[in-house]
Parts: sequence; C-alpha cells; structure tokens
Amino acid sequence: MALGVKKPFTEVIKANIGDCHAMGQKPITFFRQVLALCSYPELLEDNKFPEDVKNRARRILQACAGGSIGSYSASQGIELIRNDVARYIERRDGGIPCSPDNIYLSAGASDGIMTMLKLLVSGEGSSRTGVMISIPQYPLYSAGLAELAAVQINYYLDEAKCWSLDVKELRRALEAARKHCRPRVLCIINPGNPTGQVQSRQCIEDVIKFAAEENLFLMADEVYQDNVYAEGCQFHSFKKVLFEMGPEYSEKVELVSFHSTSKCYMGECGFRGGYMEVVNLDPEVKVQLTKLVSVRLCPPVTGQALLDLVVNPPQPDEPSYATFIKERSHTLAMLAEKAKMTQDILNQVPGISCNPVQGAMYSFPSIQLPPKAIAEAKEKGQAPDMFYCMKLLEEKGICLVPGSGFGQRDGTFHFRMTILPPTEKLKIVLAKIKEFHQSFSEQYS
Amino acid sequence: MALGVKKPFTEVIKANIGDCHAMGQKPITFFRQVLALCSYPELLEDNKFPEDVKNRARRILQACAGGSIGSYSASQGIELIRNDVARYIERRDGGIPCSPDNIYLSAGASDGIMTMLKLLVSGEGSSRTGVMISIPQYPLYSAGLAELAAVQINYYLDEAKCWSLDVKELRRALEAARKHCRPRVLCIINPGNPTGQVQSRQCIEDVIKFAAEENLFLMADEVYQDNVYAEGCQFHSFKKVLFEMGPEYSEKVELVSFHSTSKCYMGECGFRGGYMEVVNLDPEVKVQLTKLVSVRLCPPVTGQALLDLVVNPPQPDEPSYATFIKERSHTLAMLAEKAKMTQDILNQVPGISCNPVQGAMYSFPSIQLPPKAIAEAKEKGQAPDMFYCMKLLEEKGICLVPGSGFGQRDGTFHFRMTILPPTEKLKIVLAKIKEFHQSFSEQYS
Repeated sequence: MALGVKKPFTEVIKANIGDCHAMGQKPITFFRQVLALCSYPELLEDNKFPEDVKNRARRILQACAGGSIGSYSASQGIELIRNDVARYIERRDGGIPCSPDNIYLSAGASDGIMTMLKLLVSGEGSSRTGVMISIPQYPLYSAGLAELAAVQINYYLDEAKCWSLDVKELRRALEAARKHCRPRVLCIINPGNPTGQVQSRQCIEDVIKFAAEENLFLMADEVYQDNVYAEGCQFHSFKKVLFEMGPEYSEKVELVSFHSTSKCYMGECGFRGGYMEVVNLDPEVKVQLTKLVSVRLCPPVTGQALLDLVVNPPQPDEPSYATFIKERSHTLAMLAEKAKMTQDILNQVPGISCNPVQGAMYSFPSIQLPPKAIAEAKEKGQAPDMFYCMKLLEEKGICLVPGSGFGQRDGTFHFRMTILPPTEKLKIVLAKIKEFHQSFSEQYS
Repeated sequence: MALGVKKPFTEVIKANIGDCHAMGQKPITFFRQVLALCSYPELLEDNKFPEDVKNRARRILQACAGGSIGSYSASQGIELIRNDVARYIERRDGGIPCSPDNIYLSAGASDGIMTMLKLLVSGEGSSRTGVMISIPQYPLYSAGLAELAAVQINYYLDEAKCWSLDVKELRRALEAARKHCRPRVLCIINPGNPTGQVQSRQCIEDVIKFAAEENLFLMADEVYQDNVYAEGCQFHSFKKVLFEMGPEYSEKVELVSFHSTSKCYMGECGFRGGYMEVVNLDPEVKVQLTKLVSVRLCPPVTGQALLDLVVNPPQPDEPSYATFIKERSHTLAMLAEKAKMTQDILNQVPGISCNPVQGAMYSFPSIQLPPKAIAEAKEKGQAPDMFYCMKLLEEKGICLVPGSGFGQRDGTFHFRMTILPPTEKLKIVLAKIKEFHQSFSEQYS
C-alpha cells in the first residue's frame, strides 16, 4: 500500500497468525505470577502472592543450577520438568506409562519438529528420505523439508469429509513416492492446522496400522490437544491409541509427539516452551538425538518453567485453583463460541463453504472465485486466492492467509482465518468478509 | 563412579562449563526486576519497584503485540530492541553507524552461529564449503560443521605467544584446504574460548586483510567482549577495526559478529538471548537469512527483553544506576581477580604452564604427562588428558574438561578450567589441582 493513501477502513484486523495474546487473549495469572517470582526471587518474601505460587517458584528454582533460571539446564531439559511432563502424559493417557528419559524439552514445537526431521533425513538422490505431509499443511513442514533437502510427499485431506485423513490416499501417495525417494516419515497434525479437524480414534488406529505395515516413523503434531470444540469430538493422542492396540504395535511403531505452550488456553508463543516424547526410538539414535540438541546448549529456561506450570497446574486444594479454572474455562469457552460463529456465518455466504471448526484455532473455508478474477490474478502473476486476500486487505483491512500458502487441490481456493479476534471484532471481520465476497463476486462475474 | 563408594572428597566442584549463575554469580537486580514486571504487569502498580524499572518494562511491553511477552515477535526480533542494539553497537564502536536492519536477534549466540553456518555452507565433494576454525576451538563449531557436513579447516593458535593468531598459519591452513574443499568462512573467537587470549588491534587488522584477499566471510564470535582483565589488553570489535581501515575494506569484507546475554557480567545463559550483526551481506542472501530464521518463528521473547536491558542499561540520572554499576563492577572485578589468581597459582606447579588469562572466563594450561601415564591412558582407550581429568575427578572431586575436547597440537596436553567458582572455592580447586598434579607425576614417573 502506498504511504499516506487513505483507505476505506480505520484499522487492520489481523486474523492471519495463531498469535493468541497479540489478539487480546489474556495470560493465565498463576503462570505469570510464578514466572515473575522465578525472575526476581526477592518477591518470594512478598505477601501479595499466594502460597502455591511461591511453592511452585521455589520448586522450579531449586531444580535450576545455582537456584537461578539464568543457568543453563541439561540439553534435554530440566529433569524435574521432564518428570512433570511424563506424569502429565500418563494422566492424559489414562495411566499408560511414560518415561522422562523419552521427554525432550524444546523451544516451542517447531524446534522439536526441526530437530526430529534433521535426525531422520538422510541419503542422496533416489534414496533420499521422503517425508509425508498433509495438504493443506502448516508451512513449517515444507520449509523445514526444503531446508534439509528432504523429499516432500503430499497426501491430501478429504475436504468433502470434513478434512479427514483416508488411508487409501496415504497409500496412493506412498506408492507414487517410492519411485523417486525412500519414504520414511509420516507427519500428522491433529487437531489440524490449517484445517481445524479433529481425527477420530478409528482414523488414528488406521494410520498407526499403515505406519506399522510400511515401516514409517510417525510424527504427531499435537499442539492443539486442548483446543477441541465440536460436540462428539475428542482428542485422542497417538501414544494412547498406539498402546491400546497392544504390544504388536506399541513395541514396534516409532512415534514422536510434539506439544507446546503456544496454543490451547495458554497461548504463550513468546516463551518458546514445548516438549516432544519419543516412543520406540532406537537407543543408539537417541544418543544422536541428545548430541543434536546439545549443539544449541539448552531450550530457554523461562519456557521450560512455563511448560512445567502447564503440565502441573494448580490443584483443587490450592489457593490459585479457582482463578486458574475460571480463566482457563473462559478462554476455551470463548474459542468454542468463536469457532461455531465462524463456521455459521461463513456458510451463509454464497460461494463460501466452511467445514466445521472442530478444533485448533482456524477455519479454512473454500471460496469460489469467478473465472475473470482467476484470469486477472494470473495476469498479475499471483495465485488467485492471494489476489483475493490482497484485495480484501486493501478494501476492508482484514488480513488472512491465502490457501495457496498451505497447499490445496488444484483448481480449489481457500483462505485460513484464525478464530482469535475478540468476539465483537470477529463479528466485524466475518461481516466484512461477507460483504467483500459478494462485491468481489459481482465485480468479476 | 560406582554408587555408594566413598570418595576422598566431600563435594564435586564444577569448573567445566561457563555457567555463571550455576557457580554462584548473582544476576543484576535491575534486569531481573524489569523481567518480573514484564512477566506479571500487575507489578507495575507496586511501589516497591523504582520508576526506571517500571518505565523500561512498559517500554518493552508496548513493543510486544497485544502488550504481552507471550506474543510472537517478528522472526528477526522486536524492532525496538533491534534499534537499541544498533545504538549500543554505535556507542561501543565510537560512532560507526549500525543499521537495525542488519541486526538479527537469536536464542543465544549458538543459535545465530548455527544459522549463519547453515546459510553459508553448500556444495558437494571438493566444492563443499570449508570453514576455518581455531584450534583449540569451542566445540559448538566442530559439532555444527559435522551436522552440516561442512569441511572443518583447522588453524592453530600459537601457545608460545599467548595463544595469538598468526596470519602465516591461516595461510598455511587455507592453502592445504584448497586441495579438497572450497574455503569460504573464517571463524574467530575473541576474547578466546577456551584459551582466554584477547586479540590485539594489529592482529585483527591482519585477519581482515587476509579475509579481503582470500574472499573469506568473517564470523567473529565476540560474546566475551566485556570480559577483558589483563593490563594493556582491550577489546576491539571486528566491525570497528574494519570500518577504521577505510572503504576499501569496509565496503567489501563480509562480516557477522555475535553477542550473547550469557557471558560478561550478566551470565544469563538460561534466557537464551543474543544477537548478530551482519555487515556487507548481499541483499538477496539477507532475504534467505530472514526466511531461514522464520522457520523457528522467533527467538524467545524473554531473552529478547533481557538483551534490551543489556544494550540499554540504567543511565546515570536513573534510580537504578548506582546499584547497577556496583553490581556490574563487582562481578567484573571478581572475575579479574580470579583470572590473575588462576594463572599465578597454576604457574607455580612444576609441569603446568598457563598463559595469562587476558579475557573470557577460562584458563587453558598445558600439562606435562609422564610417558607411563600416556601409555596407561592408551591402554584404556582414553585420550591422555581425559585420563588425567577423570583421575582428578575421582581423587579430588574437581571437574574440568580435557584439552582433547577442544583440539590441541599433537603431543601436547591441556585442560580447560573456568574462573567461575567463588574465590574461596577457586583457591581450594587450585590447591587440589596442585596436589593432584604432583602426586600424579610421581605416581607415573
């Protein structure tokens, strides 16, 4: 946009990135209080802070060398926190055991994902490692694979069936890829980004069977595990399903699952906290993994501390419990409300079709674009949905991401929009998109 | 060590890693107060905190999306902080201009170093990029180069001349390497890790001339820039020397300099704060660099906030100034005292010879090992100085790093020891090393 040119809107509303606090989501008080005490331990003497906040801060500080969050931690992460993560996973998965030795703390999930890809990719030419990723995908994967010169193998999610994953499509993609690379890794994002679907238990079982048959290493990106909104939908971890399938699978299939402090009700992206759990990783490969993470010394300790609070939140008998539950429930309830509102309003617009936003923080509706608009975009050298999104930004001040940034079936067009703007703002966003889509369709009809 | 076996010492003293707070160095009050307020902004209402602490916290929070350090920042880092870094560099370098566009914030210096190596390494076989590193070196470099399958080109520092760098040796290493790779990068650590030397201005000029002649990209690891202790020694930044050499060099030589919040008087390793400044980087390469850093979304925002305080500390007219100066001076004075004490006591031991610890946080003395000890180490499949350090740990509870972990001239042996233990403890460490070296030498004579 040219500087100083007057635009027909008063503010730009960003619905393009999953950046919760940037869009007004409030941090959890308990988390931030403990972090303040860890930063400046003199506050442990301050009567203003509840006892559980102080206890938690003391516990974290005692686990830090020299009692300071300014010390390096072990490269795999602080042991106490890895223990807490393991217990959290056991609770989440109904008691299936989890060893802290299998937990690696990371700087957000992206750091863990890049580390695992680096570990798993090798070979040259037609024996180069192939990595299967969903289309649409979260661009971290394509960028990471390009950085590592790995072979990207696309499998398509089924938009007609609410972006579900079909093993037949996995098989098609795998067979085709075998001709030019050595497929070894299968990445899944559940709940889905950018597509917002929540995988059924049956589907996860099918995927695990497929991975077992084809000797694929499963990478399960489960950072939205607490972001499930739709009736009848539930988050099932790959780890839990794997172990419920019995030793034939649970002792064989290699799996890594990623989690993060950046999403869910926390939304603490800036802290770069996260972990990964590896299952059935060859002990010698694990030694290499530990070497690999040690090059960067350690994940940020403040992120580790925050993660500890996420996996070990206030308990019912503690003073911060009531506020914690209230804040968490409120954030999740607002997200559920906005997920519903988004799909409802978008589906009222002729030419826009939006699958239910079952989970995560995004809608990924398909948009019908008139042939004239497609032609004009091509003239400009732009993807048609990029052309659409740029016009939307210019005319309405709404910032979305075109579907072409995530990949989509040829001839289809989409945008990704977060459900993060506050309710009243989200209503405005949706109304403006409606208006815009109608006028755009008319203009190019 | 076998569990439960009684050892002839009551505690293990770690002098192996540059982990300041772990060894009792105290954080700077001002830094930690501001970070506490950034974590829990309700404290902005608390009268306990000085006005400058509050102002600084407000200023940082205003630069964060949604006013929260829980938001993502730009991948290159928060703009306000990049501006502050640029002004800091200008002050440090006597007014030589620095553009915030050339500043990339990073998760500690290691993150920046790995990113730059990734950017600069390419090619296959004999056209694979060669990277020159000093021997002894900081193992991040060898590990990073192995990870990237780059060719490591060793140049040796001159122990007889206080670990100084000789351009003749650079030229020798370069010529030899040209036969099997494409040398493109020259890494320098100044002040030196593990060797503790501070480069003279003349030497830096010679290195820059060499880089210009040979078209080498200079990577200057300057994380110890405030850790200079020896009389007559002074830190000269590569950037400043480069610009003082005139446009023939300053408009041509490609340089990146790294800094970190982990060392100097801060010692805040856990926060993973740091920056790099690129000079004369091709604009198209810069676009790729920005892409590369965006895969990991952003450096930890708490580390960015801390870095902002380091480059923009309290000013003389502000309430926190006196305490800040007192704390900083105390930490640096203690380090200087311990640097002197280390070299003095080690040089009293027959068979140990220690160069002056001019800067950084380490001594790297050479140790004479009797042929019998060398033979016994070889039988055990250990490097002789590893054998020595293991015995020292078993017998005295002192933890050091053998010189073989950093590289050294064949037939010479060393250990690296930090100057970080508190003075009284360091005295014990040095006395025990003295005792041990004497008994070890007798035992194997």
